[in-house]
Amino acid sequence: MSENQTEYTITFLPANRTVKVKDGSSVIKAAREAGLHINASCGGAGVCGKCRVIVESGEVQGGTSEKLSPEDFENGYRQACTAEVHEDITVRIPEETGRQKGGLGIDVPERHRARMHVFDIESVKKEGIFYPPVEKVCLELPKPGAHDNRSDVGRLMQGLADQLGKHRLVTGLTVLRKVRRALREKDFLVTATIELPVNEKSRNYLLNIQPGCWKHRNFGLAFDIGTTTVYGVLIDLNTGKILAKEFSYNPQMSYGEDVITRIIYAEKPKGLDMMQDLVIGAMNEIIARMLKNATPPVGEEHGPITRDEINSITIAGNTTMTHLLLKLEPDNIRRSPYVPVCTFIPPLCSEDLELELPHHCVALVYPAISSYVGGDIVAGVMGSGMYRTDLLTLFIDVGTNAEIVIGNKDWLACAACSAGPAFEGGGITHGMRAVEGAISDFSLNPENLEPMNITEGNKAPLGICGSGLLIIVATLFENKVLNQSGKFNPSDSPRIREGRSGWEYVLAWKDECATDHDIVINEVDIENFIRAKGAIFAGIMTLLEQVGLQVSDLEQIILAGGFGSYIDLDSAMSVGMLPEVDSSKFLYVGNGSLMGAWMSELSNHIRKDVVEVVRKMTSFELSEVPSFTDNYVASLFLPHTDLTLFPEAVKRRNLE
Amino acid sequence: MSENQTEYTITFLPANRTVKVKDGSSVIKAAREAGLHINASCGGAGVCGKCRVIVESGEVQGGTSEKLSPEDFENGYRQACTAEVHEDITVRIPEETGRQKGGLGIDVPERHRARMHVFDIESVKKEGIFYPPVEKVCLELPKPGAHDNRSDVGRLMQGLADQLGKHRLVTGLTVLRKVRRALREKDFLVTATIELPVNEKSRNYLLNIQPGCWKHRNFGLAFDIGTTTVYGVLIDLNTGKILAKEFSYNPQMSYGEDVITRIIYAEKPKGLDMMQDLVIGAMNEIIARMLKNATPPVGEEHGPITRDEINSITIAGNTTMTHLLLKLEPDNIRRSPYVPVCTFIPPLCSEDLELELPHHCVALVYPAISSYVGGDIVAGVMGSGMYRTDLLTLFIDVGTNAEIVIGNKDWLACAACSAGPAFEGGGITHGMRAVEGAISDFSLNPENLEPMNITEGNKAPLGICGSGLLIIVATLFENKVLNQSGKFNPSDSPRIREGRSGWEYVLAWKDECATDHDIVINEVDIENFIRAKGAIFAGIMTLLEQVGLQVSDLEQIILAGGFGSYIDLDSAMSVGMLPEVDSSKFLYVGNGSLMGAWMSELSNHIRKDVVEVVRKMTSFELSEVPSFTDNYVASLFLPHTDLTLFPEAVKRRNLE
Repeated sequence: MSENQTEYTITFLPANRTVKVKDGSSVIKAAREAGLHINASCGGAGVCGKCRVIVESGEVQGGTSEKLSPEDFENGYRQACTAEVHEDITVRIPEETGRQKGGLGIDVPERHRARMHVFDIESVKKEGIFYPPVEKVCLELPKPGAHDNRSDVGRLMQGLADQLGKHRLVTGLTVLRKVRRALREKDFLVTATIELPVNEKSRNYLLNIQPGCWKHRNFGLAFDIGTTTVYGVLIDLNTGKILAKEFSYNPQMSYGEDVITRIIYAEKPKGLDMMQDLVIGAMNEIIARMLKNATPPVGEEHGPITRDEINSITIAGNTTMTHLLLKLEPDNIRRSPYVPVCTFIPPLCSEDLELELPHHCVALVYPAISSYVGGDIVAGVMGSGMYRTDLLTLFIDVGTNAEIVIGNKDWLACAACSAGPAFEGGGITHGMRAVEGAISDFSLNPENLEPMNITEGNKAPLGICGSGLLIIVATLFENKVLNQSGKFNPSDSPRIREGRSGWEYVLAWKDECATDHDIVINEVDIENFIRAKGAIFAGIMTLLEQVGLQVSDLEQIILAGGFGSYIDLDSAMSVGMLPEVDSSKFLYVGNGSLMGAWMSELSNHIRKDVVEVVRKMTSFELSEVPSFTDNYVASLFLPHTDLTLFPEAVKRRNLE
Repeated sequence: MSENQTEYTITFLPANRTVKVKDGSSVIKAAREAGLHINASCGGAGVCGKCRVIVESGEVQGGTSEKLSPEDFENGYRQACTAEVHEDITVRIPEETGRQKGGLGIDVPERHRARMHVFDIESVKKEGIFYPPVEKVCLELPKPGAHDNRSDVGRLMQGLADQLGKHRLVTGLTVLRKVRRALREKDFLVTATIELPVNEKSRNYLLNIQPGCWKHRNFGLAFDIGTTTVYGVLIDLNTGKILAKEFSYNPQMSYGEDVITRIIYAEKPKGLDMMQDLVIGAMNEIIARMLKNATPPVGEEHGPITRDEINSITIAGNTTMTHLLLKLEPDNIRRSPYVPVCTFIPPLCSEDLELELPHHCVALVYPAISSYVGGDIVAGVMGSGMYRTDLLTLFIDVGTNAEIVIGNKDWLACAACSAGPAFEGGGITHGMRAVEGAISDFSLNPENLEPMNITEGNKAPLGICGSGLLIIVATLFENKVLNQSGKFNPSDSPRIREGRSGWEYVLAWKDECATDHDIVINEVDIENFIRAKGAIFAGIMTLLEQVGLQVSDLEQIILAGGFGSYIDLDSAMSVGMLPEVDSSKFLYVGNGSLMGAWMSELSNHIRKDVVEVVRKMTSFELSEVPSFTDNYVASLFLPHTDLTLFPEAVKRRNLE
């Protein structure tokens, strides 16, 4: 899943700081990576004209704008936001653009991100757990004669037992109906598709029979059904490799952005059918695209992969998504005491799900723990390797709901807390999802409070996404623009003003935006943010207390989910969203749910372990734990009422 | 299955022989039972006027005809064939009707029929093997609350484990979808329908869940799919009792009377689909009739039985019928080396079969041994108890194909031989099935060769059915009308004449018949009969030889199938169709296939034993055993070339 892309070196003057960036990166992003501030309101749209830099050696592509005169351009001036890097260059940041008066430049705090956990098939193979749930075997059977007139099926079963040691085989009517022709079409050379038991003592199931030898064509699917996005991967079950990866938005989105509104919709007449149809439709569309775009494996027969060659699918999703997928009435998920219809899902076939997959394709749906700790989290625990580590680990998936798991290979405890939609743009005046135009990165010139806004896709700003919100609040707080209660301190800057919802900071002026208004963050937004981060932190602290541990006991923190990759760890600790822990202990697993589903497609050992993990997991209902409220109230400050929990944040801000 | 019917005593004079007959029986049949001959050509239609008897005390109903004058009637004369017995009576047989000149009457040889084996549920219960495959249990579950928010399915499964010791339960998506409502509709009082494992180590399967308590409503079906007739029974799985029994002709009959023509039809485009549709249609129609006519069990709820309450079905049929039922291509069954698609059928659901039964209904189809020893025979071996007896047993089902099984509880061997269609009326000039008008019983006045024809339904004769053919040939042979080669000895009787197919005996003259011709049996018919009985006897002898046994070793002979009940044992031994064994050793099981299916509906022990029985059974392909031809050729005489095998038959005929 890694790509080899050319990298170039940029040297920033006068700080003489160098950084390597990927081909095509913007100069402003390069400066951000180098830890240098450049004034930039318009987020890269080339509108505000503030981010002028001088290219002193090498050439950039673009970087012009109507704010630059032909003379400026002659003299090497470019707009940092629209200038793309395609070779090694040297760039000077002029004083008006970002240098502190007389200094070398304004330092942007060093960025710490969680290390990326990359799933490695070879290590799975080395550990001896590469053992996909479906196997294809070729065999040549003795032909019938006067002294051997066993039935076709009997002959096949005996052949599988004698030649391949496959005893205790069972099958179904569909296979029985195929065997006669399959045996005779290639003169009793056949390929059997066998579902191997998760439990060694159980039976092998003969899923399919084909004439000729096709054992090199054995494919599986893994899906993550997210509330927002559906991801699928097509896997070669012989090698474990991913042959295609596709996604689409979850079309249920049109009927509600979060699980609660979807549940409410599903309670309407035909609502549940509609919800299922939508997600199944999205999966079918993703499957079609994967089949179209996949690179088939090399072999005797290397034509395009067909649906009929898909033998297995593993699906992970949160409890509500799983209910909607399986058409299980989800209404009690949203009503106290939050009872899901089921957590364990029996083995299914693709027919049960009305997926456009062959009749013989087996389907595994990840089990959930409770209404709010779903199969996606269990899959994340599996995919991240948390369930096999000795390290005492905190696993956290931040979204509208934050799911928290603490433990290691010996024990596991979990809880869910409702963070609210702030990180997905909800309840924030100019909040939005992390799509084009969203301010997702930020720094501040402390002298004049001029911002460096970096937007998704270098477009004129449209609003603020979750990662932007986090870094904006953290930066404003670290620079004492905000006090511990999240209120603005008095300031002369025109960017701090009183608006309709109390005091606010203007991130971008109307004429720099793709909107018809200034983009601001106000005290109500910050209150909502504090409630969200407070709920997460209180959840972590409460769960730690329940298992008798402290922050200092944590040896590893795994971040999962789309948001996790964007979290600036220092910001998250500055505001008291994540416990203060050395950033080297953080690991980011990306889509842990998809990774877990993929791993289950590769290994029956892992399928067996999943059952153990779910059995082992102790689930805490935070609303039933009295200390949760205390922890929550204590967390409604920046970073916290108890500053001893955040010594580094205190240092960073020179908090007394 | 037994009926209590009033019986009356008839005394026949001058022989002074009494017999008990059922209310409504005809006087002629009573004479036959008493071992007395009455001349009667027309088979009971009251046409020939030959069967005049005098009722000396008591009254009969009917018995008039245009052949009787009012004076005759006044004097007590009646037609024996149409006179019905409704009270104790005394009847005199006049000399012209049946008395030997000056004697008391012509003795009809004593009838020996196989004892009827009646299946007894109580004995099954006493043996401790009453253990139906599907159980219904009621349970009241704890209600969810803040400290117990397990999933609905988890709660149910735990309840089944805690309250009823049902561990290792699995289920499917359909049940998951029902649980939420089922639990809440009757305040957490539910009924679970559980499929119990055949093998104790396997899993219980939760088939269905209903709100409230319904454990007294648990029903199953057993079916015998015959080539000619389809029988079904509806069973109360709580008591084992049959609540309804219905049958219909197999509608595939329109496309061929025997399995070979059906296979040929199934090879045509859409032919197999059509064959399946027809038998499924017949089964659905029988199910509908059974539901309509069944007596529901008494209980809290005793409304009519509905389809949804049927939880299990067991089906037995020969190998071809099973293939057509399951839509398995049967073509190799009719082609050497006679390879069926499969013999063992995995557990199915009623959906697989497109039966109009609920989704959760499980289906068991009896396994076959080979192309010509099918599930009907295995079911017969189970239903007759042969597989559990110490007695060395010969089991034989006579039809177009005769299937033979030899063995006991320790070992079993089987073979099939093609008897041809003679016993079903095929290849016999005036042969027909055992329907109304078929001559099915017969005796002969040795002085004038006048016949006593008894027809099905007391109708004017239409032809000869299988049991009639057997007794006619045996009687003609015993009375030396036929020689050992099956040829007619010279005779003065007008009933013996030369016809188009050699010499023939006239059973009924045209004007006594419902046909436009005389009904005869000729030497070609007798040749065909001898080939049929020869094949059966050679099959028995060859199989005995293969297992190293002799006729004298046999301790029990079980006859199965429709024809078996009508076989006159003495006749069958006289002609050399069955080995000469004391008639007390014979047992008739009726529809052994249906009985076996029924037993499997009552007992998982028997289901488990079926697998063992099939594994234990050694199948012999008679065409591959060289001595079969010798045995066959030796059997093409009446009774056999080796007369030492038939000492009683020799005595009976005074054979030299």
